Amino acid sequence: MTEAKQISEGVVDLLGVIAYLELSAFDRMAEDARSAPTLAGRAKLAAMAAAEIGHYDLLSAHLSAHGVAIEDAMTPFVDHIDDWHASTPPKSWLESLVKAYVGDGLAADLYREIAHWLDPETKDLVLTVLADTGHSAFAEREVAAGIEADPKTRDKLALWGRRLLGEALTQAQYVVAERDGLAELIISGSGDLSGIAALFRRLQQGHTKRMQALGLG
Amino acid sequence: MTEAKQISEGVVDLLGVIAYLELSAFDRMAEDARSAPTLAGRAKLAAMAAAEIGHYDLLSAHLSAHGVAIEDAMTPFVDHIDDWHASTPPKSWLESLVKAYVGDGLAADLYREIAHWLDPETKDLVLTVLADTGHSAFAEREVAAGIEADPKTRDKLALWGRRLLGEALTQAQYVVAERDGLAELIISGSGDLSGIAALFRRLQQGHTKRMQALGLG
Repeated sequence: MTEAKQISEGVVDLLGVIAYLELSAFDRMAEDARSAPTLAGRAKLAAMAAAEIGHYDLLSAHLSAHGVAIEDAMTPFVDHIDDWHASTPPKSWLESLVKAYVGDGLAADLYREIAHWLDPETKDLVLTVLADTGHSAFAEREVAAGIEADPKTRDKLALWGRRLLGEALTQAQYVVAERDGLAELIISGSGDLSGIAALFRRLQQGHTKRMQALGLG
Repeated sequence: MTEAKQISEGVVDLLGVIAYLELSAFDRMAEDARSAPTLAGRAKLAAMAAAEIGHYDLLSAHLSAHGVAIEDAMTPFVDHIDDWHASTPPKSWLESLVKAYVGDGLAADLYREIAHWLDPETKDLVLTVLADTGHSAFAEREVAAGIEADPKTRDKLALWGRRLLGEALTQAQYVVAERDGLAELIISGSGDLSGIAALFRRLQQGHTKRMQALGLG
């Protein structure tokens, strides 16, 4: 690894956590696709899963160009992200879709915030990776149709959305507490502790907007 | 649907069966990826799964441009292909890899044969879809390492490969027997019944070569 190409511990952590979020989202969506009520829905969720792998490959290439094996970068985050998935198993097709939609959106908001603190090359990479995979409209349509067919599902899905956010923030706090490099990146990026609080507030606002777009706000 | 854009029943069947093979291979590989012994292996099998969806999207766009919904084209083949997967569940990581490798290779050989009988546009599509997704070398390496670590696995995996081929040919025969358009396409393409026999022989030869490449021949 040459000096010029070295990237900071915090950036390795950041790309590692994003990579494992992508890989585990792939798993989750691919598994959930099997319970889709239609072939079209199954193909759509499979396509959302496949898009995660496209992003994963970009991260892998970038890390590898800087002398870091993506597996090593991901390893510290496997347990917390697996815990998040284990604590929020979707129990229906609509819960699967809400999870995919909310999880993708939350991750995208977070990456967008963080991208501004990075060097131009890493920033471009992160912005590419978070680009909407164009599947949001599908989730919005399906959830709206599900609520129309059975209005009682609305409250249940709204609770589900809140739980997804709560569990995600819990695990995110553990991760930041354990990884000094990542914590430094976030603190120096957001300015100070009140900057972090503001960041979390913006993430919650983004989540609220997404729940509204799903008809669950 | 305009006259000029219409495609024959046999071609719709062919693209439908390929599409569902891709979608179900995605499912299989995505599920198997979860049992990978390493993060690197898991990411690799996930990438093989994602490649199937890239192909699926091409087929979907082509069928849609000719006024056919891909779900309708796939429906007749769902049961037989699901039966193939149900009759050949991998029981280990190496069995998963052999199945992915052998299944992809067999499908590619079949598409390559059939491509020659198609109009130029469909032919180009099919040849794109069968392009090696670049993952063969990974499977060859992993299987070789597995056999070296435990030589007893060799015979078991060789048997497994034979079973995969046998079950695939069984289901393929059911499919052709049930779908007149597809049978016509194959008979007119291969010339006559002896042409079909020669085609099946070539598929078996391709399979034998792949088993040799895996060290299982």
